Formats: sequence, C-alpha cells, structure tokens
Amino acid sequence: MASEDHGGTHAGAPGAPGEPDKDAVRAVLAAARAEGRTALTAPEGKLLADAYGIPVPQEGLAESADEAVALADRIGFPVVMKIVSPDILHKTDAGGVVVGVASAAEARGAFTSIVGNARTYAPEARVHGVQVQQMAPPGTEVLIGTVTDPTFGKVVAFGLGGVLVEVLKDVTFRLAPASEEEALSMLDGIRAADVLKGVRGGEAVDRAALAGLVSRVSRLADDFPEIAEIDLNPVFASAGGAVAADIRVLLTTEAPVERPRHTKAEILTAMRRLMQPRSVTVIGASNEPGKIGNSVMRNLIDGGFPGEIHPVNPKADDILGRKAYKSVQDVPGEVDVAVFAIPAKFVAAALEEAGRKGIPNAVLIPSGFAETGEHALQEEIVEIGRRHGIRLLGPNIYGYYSPWQDLCATFCTPYDVKGGVALTSQSGGIGMAILGFARTTRTGVSAIVGLGNKSDIDEDDLLTYFADDPHTECIAMHLEDLKDGRAFVDAARETVKKKPVVVLKAGRTSAGAKAAGSHTGALAGDDAVYDDILRQAGVIRAPGLNEMLEYARALPVLPAPQGDNTVIITGAGGSGVLLSDAIVDNGMSLMEIPPDLDEAFRRFIPPFGAAGNPVDITGGEPPSTYEATIRLGLEDPRIHSLVLGYWHTIVTPPMVFAELTARVVAEAREKGIHKPVVASLAGDTEVEEACAYLFEHGVVAYPYTTEKPVAVLGAKYRWARAAGLL
Amino acid sequence: MASEDHGGTHAGAPGAPGEPDKDAVRAVLAAARAEGRTALTAPEGKLLADAYGIPVPQEGLAESADEAVALADRIGFPVVMKIVSPDILHKTDAGGVVVGVASAAEARGAFTSIVGNARTYAPEARVHGVQVQQMAPPGTEVLIGTVTDPTFGKVVAFGLGGVLVEVLKDVTFRLAPASEEEALSMLDGIRAADVLKGVRGGEAVDRAALAGLVSRVSRLADDFPEIAEIDLNPVFASAGGAVAADIRVLLTTEAPVERPRHTKAEILTAMRRLMQPRSVTVIGASNEPGKIGNSVMRNLIDGGFPGEIHPVNPKADDILGRKAYKSVQDVPGEVDVAVFAIPAKFVAAALEEAGRKGIPNAVLIPSGFAETGEHALQEEIVEIGRRHGIRLLGPNIYGYYSPWQDLCATFCTPYDVKGGVALTSQSGGIGMAILGFARTTRTGVSAIVGLGNKSDIDEDDLLTYFADDPHTECIAMHLEDLKDGRAFVDAARETVKKKPVVVLKAGRTSAGAKAAGSHTGALAGDDAVYDDILRQAGVIRAPGLNEMLEYARALPVLPAPQGDNTVIITGAGGSGVLLSDAIVDNGMSLMEIPPDLDEAFRRFIPPFGAAGNPVDITGGEPPSTYEATIRLGLEDPRIHSLVLGYWHTIVTPPMVFAELTARVVAEAREKGIHKPVVASLAGDTEVEEACAYLFEHGVVAYPYTTEKPVAVLGAKYRWARAAGLL
Repeated sequence: MASEDHGGTHAGAPGAPGEPDKDAVRAVLAAARAEGRTALTAPEGKLLADAYGIPVPQEGLAESADEAVALADRIGFPVVMKIVSPDILHKTDAGGVVVGVASAAEARGAFTSIVGNARTYAPEARVHGVQVQQMAPPGTEVLIGTVTDPTFGKVVAFGLGGVLVEVLKDVTFRLAPASEEEALSMLDGIRAADVLKGVRGGEAVDRAALAGLVSRVSRLADDFPEIAEIDLNPVFASAGGAVAADIRVLLTTEAPVERPRHTKAEILTAMRRLMQPRSVTVIGASNEPGKIGNSVMRNLIDGGFPGEIHPVNPKADDILGRKAYKSVQDVPGEVDVAVFAIPAKFVAAALEEAGRKGIPNAVLIPSGFAETGEHALQEEIVEIGRRHGIRLLGPNIYGYYSPWQDLCATFCTPYDVKGGVALTSQSGGIGMAILGFARTTRTGVSAIVGLGNKSDIDEDDLLTYFADDPHTECIAMHLEDLKDGRAFVDAARETVKKKPVVVLKAGRTSAGAKAAGSHTGALAGDDAVYDDILRQAGVIRAPGLNEMLEYARALPVLPAPQGDNTVIITGAGGSGVLLSDAIVDNGMSLMEIPPDLDEAFRRFIPPFGAAGNPVDITGGEPPSTYEATIRLGLEDPRIHSLVLGYWHTIVTPPMVFAELTARVVAEAREKGIHKPVVASLAGDTEVEEACAYLFEHGVVAYPYTTEKPVAVLGAKYRWARAAGLL
Repeated sequence: MASEDHGGTHAGAPGAPGEPDKDAVRAVLAAARAEGRTALTAPEGKLLADAYGIPVPQEGLAESADEAVALADRIGFPVVMKIVSPDILHKTDAGGVVVGVASAAEARGAFTSIVGNARTYAPEARVHGVQVQQMAPPGTEVLIGTVTDPTFGKVVAFGLGGVLVEVLKDVTFRLAPASEEEALSMLDGIRAADVLKGVRGGEAVDRAALAGLVSRVSRLADDFPEIAEIDLNPVFASAGGAVAADIRVLLTTEAPVERPRHTKAEILTAMRRLMQPRSVTVIGASNEPGKIGNSVMRNLIDGGFPGEIHPVNPKADDILGRKAYKSVQDVPGEVDVAVFAIPAKFVAAALEEAGRKGIPNAVLIPSGFAETGEHALQEEIVEIGRRHGIRLLGPNIYGYYSPWQDLCATFCTPYDVKGGVALTSQSGGIGMAILGFARTTRTGVSAIVGLGNKSDIDEDDLLTYFADDPHTECIAMHLEDLKDGRAFVDAARETVKKKPVVVLKAGRTSAGAKAAGSHTGALAGDDAVYDDILRQAGVIRAPGLNEMLEYARALPVLPAPQGDNTVIITGAGGSGVLLSDAIVDNGMSLMEIPPDLDEAFRRFIPPFGAAGNPVDITGGEPPSTYEATIRLGLEDPRIHSLVLGYWHTIVTPPMVFAELTARVVAEAREKGIHKPVVASLAGDTEVEEACAYLFEHGVVAYPYTTEKPVAVLGAKYRWARAAGLL
C-alpha cells in the first residue's frame, strides 16, 4: 500500500489553491508552543506548507511497481526514485537511484531495476520499498520570506537567491498580507528583475505561480501573529511553477503591541478643533520678553488670530493686555487648545486641570521628557491625556501654525503666507528650516506642525486631517521614525488618492539611524523596508531636506499630468542634453515625436535647429519662437508635460521669456488645457526674478540648475501614478 | 611521444609570467590579416594567450601510460583524461573519460582503463591515444575583456560572469594598459566585490593572480592596435589562480586616428598668450548697439582691460573712441588674441590675414560651423589655423573671461570678482548659467571659457594652463564629449596632483547622449566607461549643473582634509541625523570618538545632550557652547574635518553663530590648524546672511539643506584621495 507523506491538494496546483487550512496550522503551532519550542521541525514546516498551498517536493513510499506508477502519476512526472532500505547507505553505488523518471512505463521499469539492483548489491538487505519524489524543475533560485518589522509588523520579502541577495541585497519588501497583484509588483521590484523574464536563453518563470506563492506565504505570516519569521530558501521558480526546497519557521512568544487607535471620525473631530480652534489658552503665558510663554502670546496676537486668547498665569492679572487667569479652570467658555509653555515638571498637574476643564487638545512645547531620558514623566502625561480624552501634540516641539486661521501657536516668528502645503517635522531644527525656506520662497502654507516626541498625535492623525482639509493640496513630512507604520500606511493610502504626500525619512543610513537612536538602525535592510513600503503606500520619498522643501513648494503649483509624454523645448542645446539626463534620472521618458508633430515644430525653428525631442529652437531666437513652440506643446493633445530650457540672450531677455511663457500657459488654461510646465533658466542674475515670476504664474522654474525643475516634475509624476491618474 | 598543444611556461604560473612574446602575436595577427579575417580561431587565440601569460586549460596527447603521467605531471593535477579516436564519438559511453585524475598512479590506471574500455567497446576503432587536459578549479566565473572606445581607445573591462554582468551591468573599466595595482582596484570596483573575497563559505580568489591576468590582457590589447576586442568569458577565478576557459579575439582593419598633439611647453606658451594677453584685436568691432562686435568692444573697455584693444572694421575710422583698422594686418605691434565677431562665411579670409600677421590665438565667437552641419567650413578654418600655427578657441562660443587680467572678451556682461575657480563650458547656455550663478554668489573666478565646437583648443589645453596658473585653485568643466580622452586623462592626472578638477559630463543617460548627438550614445555602458575612467583620472564628477557650480564655488574655500575623521557638532538633533545620512551618502564615515575626547565634549554640553558622534549640544544653548565644542573639534589633532548643524534660537541668533564660528576658525588658522569646516543652518531667513558671512570667512555654509555642505566636503575628500593626500 502506498503511503504519502504529503498529499495535499494544494501542492502542485499553485494556480488555484483552495482556502488555507488554518486549523492544521493552529494544531502544529499549539504543539510547538506546548513543548516551548520557537522553531518548527521540517515535517511541521511541511504541514504548514501544505495547509497554505506552498508547493514543496512531494514524496511517498511505493511497495510495488503499481504503487510507484500510481504515486508518480499523482505527484506528476518527472520523478526521482530511490531505494528505501535501512541496510543500504550508498544508494547510488547500489544502483538504487533513478532520476528523471518521465512516464508510467519508466516508473514501472525503474521500480523493478532498483529493487533488482539492490538485491544483487546486498542480498541480505531489508528493502522497504522505493521512495518516489517530485523532481524540482531546475529553474531560477529565489528567496521568499517574512519577518516581523518593529515599525510595520509582518513584512514579506522577495529576492533572487544566492549572491544577489547576500552580497547585493537585491530584495524587495511589502506589507503582509500582500495580494497577488502586489506580489507581482515585487517580481519587478528587484534590480535583477530581468532574470525572471528569461535571460541567456533561460526560460521565463511562471509569474502568476510565483506571485501566488509569495502572496500565500505572506498570508500565512499575517494569519498567525506567533509566527516571527518564515524562510523559503531556495524556491525553484521555472516556467512550470515554483517549488520551495525548504521551509523554515520561527515562532515568537512576545505578544504584539497594539497601539490605541482612534476612528477616522474621532481623529477628524479632534484635529479640526486643534487646527481650526475658536478659543486658545496659553498655560504659562508671560509678560517677560525672552520667555517662551511671552513669545507664544505675542505670536498669537501679532499673527492676528481672530478667536479668543486666554493667558493663564497664577502671578499676573494681565498678559500683553489680555486678562490672565490663575488656573486654566478659571478660563471662561469652551476652550479648543491649551498651549503649554511651562517647565516639564509642572505639565502633569496643569494637564490634569485642562482635562477637568474638558479641553480636547494640549500643545506641549516643553522639552525634558523622553528625549532627555525622562520616560516616566512622559508616560505620566500620556496616561493623564488618555484618561481625560485629551489629544497631546508633542512634547518637545516649537508649536504649530495654521495660517488660514491666522494662528501662530509657537515661540518662533509668525508666518502668514496662506497656501496649499501642509508641513510637519519631528525635529525643531527642521521646523525652523521649513519656516525660513517658506518665508524666503514665499511658499503658500496651510499648516506647519511640530511633532517632537509624538507621545500621542502623530503623522497619521495629521494625514487624516490634511486629506480632508480643503486648503491643503500637498503634504510634506519630516520623520525619524513611525510609531505605528501600519496606521501611517493606511492614512497615506487614503490621502494619496487626493493629494501628494512627500516624506523625508531621516536616518536612512545606519549612521543616520544610529544618530536617531533607532533600535533597528544596526539591521541592514532597515531602510529598504521603509523605502519599499512607503513607495507601496504611494508616498513620494524626498532624498534630502532641500528636496522635501522644494517638492512642498512646487507640487501644488503644477497640475497633474494626464499622460507620460514629456517634451523638452530649449533655446540652449547644452541645457537640452542635461534636461534629457534629468528626465531619465527621474524615471520619466522623452516622448517619441510623431512625424507630423515634428514637422509642426520645424515650421517655427531655424533650419539648423533640431526638432525631435529635445526641440532645440537654438540660441538667439526672438520671443515669438519660444511662444509658438510652447503654445504648440501645450495645445497638441499628444503631449502631456513640458520642460523648458531658457537661454538668456539680448534678443529674448529673462523677463520677456517669463511673461510670454506665463501668458501662453494662462491662455491654454482658459481653454481648459492644464499641463505641468517646468523651466530651467540659464542666464545672468535677472533669471532669478524671472523664475519667481514664473512660479507665481503656475510654472515651476529654477535658475542655474537643470536638475531641480525635472526632479519636481518627476515627483508629480510619481504621485500621479500612485494616485491612479496615469 | 607526447605532443603538447600548449606548453607555455606562463600558464599555470600566473604570479610571475615572463615578458610577453610579441613576435608570436605578430605572426598570428599577420597570418589572420593575410587571409582577410577579423576574428582569430580558437587555436590562434590560445597562441596569443600563451604569448601573454594568460592561463588557459593546458592539454596534450599521451600515447602511453608513461607519457600520460609525464604530461599530467607537467600540467599539474587534477587532470581530465579522454580517449582520442576518430571512430569513437560517444566517449563517455565507451568508458573513455575519467575526470578528477589526481595522482601519477591514477593517471597510469586511467590510461590503461580508458584504452582497455575503448578496445572492448569498439575493437575496430583506431586509437590515437589519450588526451590529458588541465581541470579548471571550480572557482568564481568572471569576465575580462577589452574594447576600443571611441573616446578613450583601448579599455579593459572586468566583472563577474553570468547574470551580474548581463542583467545588472556590474562591470568596471580602466584605460589599457592597466597596471596590476589598477587591476586590483577593479576587483574592488564592482558592486559584487565581496563575492571575490569569499561569501557563503566560498574561498577568496587569488587577487594577485586575477589582477595580473587583467593587467596582461590589457597589455596585449594595448600592444597591438589592430586588436579591436578581446573577450575572456568565463575566467574561473579561485584561491588557486585564474584560468580562462576561452579567449575570443576580434581584429579591426581601421587605423587608429591620431589627433595632433602639442607639447606641454607649446600649450603653455599659447595658453598664456590667450589668457594673459597684452594686445587684443576685435575683428568685426562695431559702433552699433546690439551687434556682437559692439558688445565685445564694450566689455573689453568696461571690464577695464589694461592692454591694447584694437578694433578692426573696414567701414569705420573709430569704434567706441578707439582707432579702427581696415584689416587686422594694419594693426600695430604684436597681437596676442584676435576675437572674431563676424559672420561664419567671412571667418576663413580674416583668419588667413590673422595668420599672416602672426597672431597666435583666434577666439571664434560666430556660430554656423559644424554645429549647424557646416563641417566643410569648420575643416577649412582648422586647416588655416594649423598652417599658420594659430590656436583656435571655438567656434560657436560666447568668448572668455580672464578676471585677473580684467579681460572680458565676450558678448555677455562683464564679470570682475577675482578668485580661484576656472570654469569652462562646451555650451553657451551653460556658460550663461555659470555667469549668473557666479554673480549671485559672488564666486571668485580666475577664468570662464567657452569651448563650443572645440575645433582646436579643448579641455586638456586649458587644464594644462590652469594647473600651472597660480590664481587657479579649482577647475570646473562642463563637457558633452572629449575629442581626445587620453589627452584629457593625462592632463587631468597632472592637474589633480595640485588642485581639484570637477567635471559635469552631460549626456550621461542614453536619452541625454542622444540629445548630445553622440555616436556612442546608444551603446549601453558608454557612461560607465566615462565614469570609471574619469574617476581613475582623479576627477570629481558632478552629478548635475548645480552641483558643478556649488563645488566650483566652495572647494577653493576649504582647506584639504588631512585624515578621514569627520565629526558633526549640532544644536539640532534632527539635523544631526540628516547630516549623518549625508556623510554616508558621500562616501565618508563618522569618527568613532575615543572615550577621553567624548569626555572632553561632555564637559561643554548639557547632561541630556548626546556626545558620541554627532555631538548633540541640544537646542537652546548659548554661543559659548557652540564656541567651546567647535574649538575642541578644531584643536584635537585626531579630528580632521567638522560638520556643523546650527539651529536658530533667540539665545544664539544666526549672525552670532556665524561670527563666533568664523572667529574660532580664524584663531585656529593663526595656530596653523587648517581643517575643512562646513555648516548647515536651519532657521528663519536671517540664516541666509549668516551663510554668506561664513562663506566669506572660510566656512562653507548653506541654509535649508543638510545635504549640500556635506556633498561639498565629500567632493573635497574625493579630491584629497585622488591627489594622494590621504
């Protein structure tokens, strides 16, 4: 009688596995837990594989030629057949192994010859039968695994096996569970992706089978919190499917930490009262210049906040002309926000009072909490906040700005340029850089918020609000860590459908992470997880501070592109070359110009100018040439975005170029044509004024750089793709 | 009797090969040429391999067991032995192959059994004997090859075999011939370099043997111009050496194009007269505003050029108050430079006259030559120049500036900030960007030169001059191609010993190269050759236009670092994290601070501040904390460079920080301490003024970015390494 070790219906049919058998897994895990083990045995691993349709080589014992044929038939040809005898150690020497058995007839013959050879080789040996084992097709070795990331929880990894993973770290990550579609994107997410498509005469792998396998492995990890790691290495992927040679499973005894979560409605209610308050109280308001409580009061007043401002100071009757109260409980009426400008040690008591007053938001400016090692103090205020239902911003922050409310609840200088970008920073220094940059570039802002220690309110709360806020058109966030990566991804996915989210993740490198004090900083690949998962969430990752600031400033200026066809129109051939480089660097491609459009451009440019793409109108051309070619670029519906290269000449001075470009773009918008237009201006210092003018008129323009305008356009394209607009 | 196909003394002893046998190669190449072949046969390839000590598997025919033993002994064990019979096709079936023959006894036994088996298998077969062949050790597959690059000539390539080369293009290039030391640097120059050091339990390869092989292959290619390509793929590299499985050689019938070269003395004489002229004539000088000949005259006069300025115009007596001449031949005295401001079609005749007048330099502003397809016109002027010994700058340029001579020989606006950076650009648009950037940042300049079509004078002529020019401290060049890559590399190597050379190579991507009209643009890996060889030449490659301009502005400000120990001192923890990321991104590393130094820093900072590296002095500290920590960083001899992170607070406003930093740096310089110091200023707009002040006082400082100051420091480090200072 044939006995099969693993005869699961899933294995061998990766295309359409049934529902996973969770009970089978539960039983295996319970048994391991009962024995206090944190690693599964190989047979236990195979049980999990079978339960989740993870193909592993099947095998069984045949005691007769008929059984061998039946078994091989069920497993699928080709198979390997091997003598099973406790007395024969060197099976090959005994003529006891036949590989590549490809048909029923061959299986029957192999059984007979293997048993016959064994009897000849060792007449006394006990023969139990012949093992029939599925042959893994040669295929490409890949790695599939899951880990438990401290920020994002269960994460699935995919890469090519061997040197590519181990030396080049060519691995990609997604949140578990990953759908088959997400898993397919992982196959394209590694640098060596072409290997899977077949190179050097190799066959392409069965992508659906491989993606299905990745997806099922991720689901197994997600279904069972106690699974810490799964490692399938190698998996043999081929045109015929994907089979894991081996499955290794590690368990954890730690219960996952659940962070308290608020509903979207709760978040919106609290954040609206924070960002659009009617009444603000300042705890620790002061008349003494240089004190934080004085700066905050002055900024609230000088910033022009039209709501109520109530200073609290037990030793003063009056602060900057406003009646002061001894305690926050004495403040009249409903209060939306309490700004704390008192030393750390007094915060808990004041927060209690604010709680009793029913104030829903506390803005905790003081430092001296977790960032200086005072973890207990921070835990105390978190507990008070939770008990009273107060949301906490900070501690250890500069405060926040809500320009559309004329609200500057901060000890920095006021800022009043209203606009579409919301910025947050985890660090105060970066907050000051945001403020200075915004002021010097006159960037229109909907919010600037310091997050500091993030004891409570964090990026996902603010994202939820900004997504909903009609003033906000783009969100840019500096962060060093995420308290709850899953909540961030959820909020980001929702937001990205409506508006771009830019993230500057500090601590990318291990040195940076060490400086950030990250627990996972030392782990190689830590940033790789962030990078892949932020991309999966549709976030635009800024490579550095200046890029974050420039994207924040420029993205709201540009309309969304409606297609991939980018055209460069340039007066300087040299700029055209550099702009072309930048377009490729930023993941875009130059439109192949069709002959009729080429002909149309040629009508406007000198005979020695170059049509094609870049359209090189040549230096020394009058304004009419720029105007005609830009208009053509805007009006031809096959073109989706324009990159302009301007060359300063006496014939077309900078402001002439700026005005004509702004006018042609405005005319197109009148006609309902909204295309992103960016410009690089090469010239003497007058180009700076021209760039400022262009920016104000909806064209993203920079002097002395061919890279920046294209990088901004590239960021807009990345968002448009993530938002499903392309 | 044993006959050996290849018994060269080189093979098998790669450590110490003798001098190559050029005559043997010459004979093979002559024979191939005589037959009109452009590819060598496998046996011919092996002859070349033997002549240059390139190990290939050795083999020979043994007619007796004694001969087999002797042959195997000479080749070295293990060997493979195979029946040689024209009548036996399936050697394995005939029992005619034994692999892994490891000793004399085994070789004797194998000979007997192979011949015996053959006689049993096919009694009638003619048996010639047994082939004894060297067994390649398993090892790592690598690729070694040479190609003939249109810019750089013979170039040697090295990479790992298989997927890594074909899919990931993980290949590195050097000029041929490459020394063994250069070849060793190639082993570290690939991304997968760790594979050669042994991973996954694999053995490290014999690096000396592998580098020796790369070097000898490069020498073979270099010694014989008619060799177009050599391809050794795969080479098996192991702890025991490196053996090429196969050598493929392609020949060319094209004679290499030799560009005319001048001696260094000739170049310096001509360039000195160009850059430091006493007398300049303007051919096509004009009184009419808007004409190029008018702009050039005005700029020469307004720029304050103290030498003679002679306008030439057949129709005027007087141009801008200077006596005009009908012809350049009428101009009195010796003339160093003739600036041409006349249409292209008149240039040849005027150049003839300039030649007869003995003028050594012609600055050809007009366009309408090769760049518009008028190749014949360009060739005509090149021929005239060569005949008269006139060096030609251009055509198709904006002219040039030599600020230390108060010389503005250009139709653009004058520029007068004297300083240490020499800039060149191939494109006029980029030249205008240089001018505008320099003016807005008040960059001190020693030269700005337009190169345009580079019909004669090119980057290597100017590099030779700038290397020698005492005013020039740094050179920055925008280029789209190099007319003579070898001459550039030679000049760059000489220059880099004295001062940094920054190159912006436009057309990096295939789209960019296509826009540049490069013939090689379509070839993948074209930029990889440029990238590796520019690095080999010690050049700092700027990734974009803005970086080139910033490096040019900032590198002369910084002293050279004298060691690798970089320390961050920051008031903003958030900046510290981003600065740490930037340090890793730019190929530097944070110093591990020894305990006594850590203790010394701690004495100045609050107890909750973080020593270590970054030294986080925390926000809100007074000027004295910045001052004490910066002074310590400068005075401790173990620290070699400082990166400062400033956070704008009321306690230490931006200009206070700038002044104290400048003072502490100046005091250190008084004491002979010269260390590079860069700073990132995060704050409100006053930080812009503070950065300008710091720049003027020898500290490279930028607002609103943590990346730029570190990128500049990284560029300075790259130069210091290339110049052999570290």
